[in-house]
Amino acid sequence: MRIVDLIAKKRDGKELSTQEIEFFVKGYTEGAIPDYQASAMMMAIYFQDMTDRECADLTMAMVNSGDTIDLSAIDGIKVDKHSTGGVGDTTTLVLAPLVAALDIPVAKMSGRGLGHTGGTLDKLESVKGFHIEINKEEFIDLVNRHKVAVIGQSGNLTPADKKMYALRDVTGTVNSIPLIASSIMSKKIAAGSDAIVLDVKTGAGAFMKTDEDAIELAKSMVRIGNNVGRHTMAVISDMSQPLGFAIGNALEVQEAIDTLRGKGPADLTELTLVLGSQMVVLAKKANTLEEARQMLLEVINNGKALEKFKAFLANQGGDASVVDHPERLPQAKYKIEVPAKTSGVVANIIADEIGVAAMLLGAGRATKEDDIDLAVGLMLHKKMGDSVKAGDSLVTIYANREDVSSVMDKIYHSIAIAEHGQAPKLIHTVITQ
Amino acid sequence: MRIVDLIAKKRDGKELSTQEIEFFVKGYTEGAIPDYQASAMMMAIYFQDMTDRECADLTMAMVNSGDTIDLSAIDGIKVDKHSTGGVGDTTTLVLAPLVAALDIPVAKMSGRGLGHTGGTLDKLESVKGFHIEINKEEFIDLVNRHKVAVIGQSGNLTPADKKMYALRDVTGTVNSIPLIASSIMSKKIAAGSDAIVLDVKTGAGAFMKTDEDAIELAKSMVRIGNNVGRHTMAVISDMSQPLGFAIGNALEVQEAIDTLRGKGPADLTELTLVLGSQMVVLAKKANTLEEARQMLLEVINNGKALEKFKAFLANQGGDASVVDHPERLPQAKYKIEVPAKTSGVVANIIADEIGVAAMLLGAGRATKEDDIDLAVGLMLHKKMGDSVKAGDSLVTIYANREDVSSVMDKIYHSIAIAEHGQAPKLIHTVITQ
Repeated sequence: MRIVDLIAKKRDGKELSTQEIEFFVKGYTEGAIPDYQASAMMMAIYFQDMTDRECADLTMAMVNSGDTIDLSAIDGIKVDKHSTGGVGDTTTLVLAPLVAALDIPVAKMSGRGLGHTGGTLDKLESVKGFHIEINKEEFIDLVNRHKVAVIGQSGNLTPADKKMYALRDVTGTVNSIPLIASSIMSKKIAAGSDAIVLDVKTGAGAFMKTDEDAIELAKSMVRIGNNVGRHTMAVISDMSQPLGFAIGNALEVQEAIDTLRGKGPADLTELTLVLGSQMVVLAKKANTLEEARQMLLEVINNGKALEKFKAFLANQGGDASVVDHPERLPQAKYKIEVPAKTSGVVANIIADEIGVAAMLLGAGRATKEDDIDLAVGLMLHKKMGDSVKAGDSLVTIYANREDVSSVMDKIYHSIAIAEHGQAPKLIHTVITQ
Repeated sequence: MRIVDLIAKKRDGKELSTQEIEFFVKGYTEGAIPDYQASAMMMAIYFQDMTDRECADLTMAMVNSGDTIDLSAIDGIKVDKHSTGGVGDTTTLVLAPLVAALDIPVAKMSGRGLGHTGGTLDKLESVKGFHIEINKEEFIDLVNRHKVAVIGQSGNLTPADKKMYALRDVTGTVNSIPLIASSIMSKKIAAGSDAIVLDVKTGAGAFMKTDEDAIELAKSMVRIGNNVGRHTMAVISDMSQPLGFAIGNALEVQEAIDTLRGKGPADLTELTLVLGSQMVVLAKKANTLEEARQMLLEVINNGKALEKFKAFLANQGGDASVVDHPERLPQAKYKIEVPAKTSGVVANIIADEIGVAAMLLGAGRATKEDDIDLAVGLMLHKKMGDSVKAGDSLVTIYANREDVSSVMDKIYHSIAIAEHGQAPKLIHTVITQ
């Protein structure tokens, strides 16, 4: 088998066999196939697409390129959730204890991410004492006994994906549905869950700018999951404006606590319930999404979800008293209001620009080496469709420095006040097969 | 300017500016742009094509990546000819003295090639004493005084093309019209001629298998040439079967002599006249192709073309007596006939398979280091459409070894005898603008 022939085959729109895809992924991972052939292959895939069978094969070839996590010692159906990424997305922090409160095992692996804020792990470290330095046995034991635990990413997971992603980033082949779908799904599958719920964001603040693209990606991932034996569902959700009010690490922990208590922002609460319902159905704890939603609402209303969050924090060394004493979370030195300059209705909030404003405060990382400030961030007071009077605070800036003029400029630039405006639809589509 | 943005621009079907194309070609030639980005760009070009303006810019960027030859010290309009390559193509050997006999300057640069037989240079070295070790001043003086001379390729011509071609070869991006057209034209333009005649071969033995592809390539090259100020014309000619009868170095020199004497194979003679007519018109020695053809026929009939060939050989140290004494050309030890197994009509001669048979005898090079045997080769006795009786010789094998069974197998495999068959049309189209 020669890779140049396989490039030509894909270039000409023909379907690659399972063996041919394995040859490509293995050869590239091991260095036998050079970057310049891999980039040509990926550009050919960009133009010629892949069939469902090819996508599934590509995904499994990437899974098999490295270690996989064995969660079989955990009882029950392990359901994982993945978001394609947005601004102020606190759903994981809410969902983990929420579904665990229904006895669904949540065995979460988490890393530190680059972005507007830290990853789930960074956010949890806002809670004093919380740590993920537990070994695999403790992790499995915690999940079996308490249904929820988080461990740091370990092992050499999907090295093929890492190498291919880095190459795509510099060769104009990022925006390819089969390549994006297999990249995401390979990581989820290697991480060992039995079923997967996907939150595919769409809109100005998301990677997928249109519903059409988001639906195509979601369908591709759902088919991959189901074709390789992992039940998968997806939600297409709005990311034209940030989700919820909080953008920042400790601020989002606080918002997650509010939401578990039933007092969270309407959009965050709704998305959590929609995603959570899918997780409950995939875990076979309910037959319908509606039944699942009622179960989730019940554990919010009866306090079990919040109790589960406290236990989760305490199990991993965290100070669970923050749940009732939010002042024990990291506090920023300065709170600066951003008053509206005119009256009207909020017509637009550019999600990724608001994210950059949070990053300028130190809430996120641009490179792996950057330090993160857990206390800083933004709290929105107005969302799209809200009426506003000149002088009302649009946003509170939580900062550890006095001069936030650049952040304020960014916020004013991001929020448009006009005569008319309306809230975007939050849940665009639910894809169950 | 970032190359990843330019890749994405071309990927999305947009036109690259002159500056952007220069940035790509210069950056890649100098090593600032790595192979993996160049291959992604070329695959994007493969799918999205290039406009005439982009093709011309790409060509000139490749010309400017290295040295160019200055032929301005030669009087008159210098017309070069290029063939996209076939089997038994002796036209250059005939055309050079033929048009020089009409006082058109032929300043030929030639290298040793890979292929079924050697290049023009190898073929000329069948003539004892002939050499190309002349300096640039002698070369120009010879062309000014005698209108024809050949010099070896010198200088660092189109390094961008060399690097890009090597990469295309291993990344499935060879078959791209804008990349093929700019590669060929950049070399011709760097070599300094004022006008260019292109012989684009089509058929089973050619790189372009269909007329449609050949015409597209020819038109692209003609437009490039004319857009950068070099008058260019093209001929689409048949390469389903070999051209002429001889395939081999000394054998083709002999065939060229026969043709200059007016006794060559019909197809070789006709193609030479068609291409030669274009050269005469581009050199402004005739106003119409028909007038040019009559001038060429005249110098064949009155012996001036053959005299020019003799002078050309002698000027560069060659033994011109071979023209009248062909036995002084290198002779093979063995002549082996290949008799027809059945009677009928020759329905097919697979040109590239016949070429491989010649190569098996040692007539050509597979790698640059290979030695070439100037005496060996094949002489066809039948062409497509010819009647044949069982036992008639189809081909004479000229070999320097006794066992030619593998060559014979190849020949039998290449020539089909059937009830019906006909000669293919030689000249498919003439493209003058």
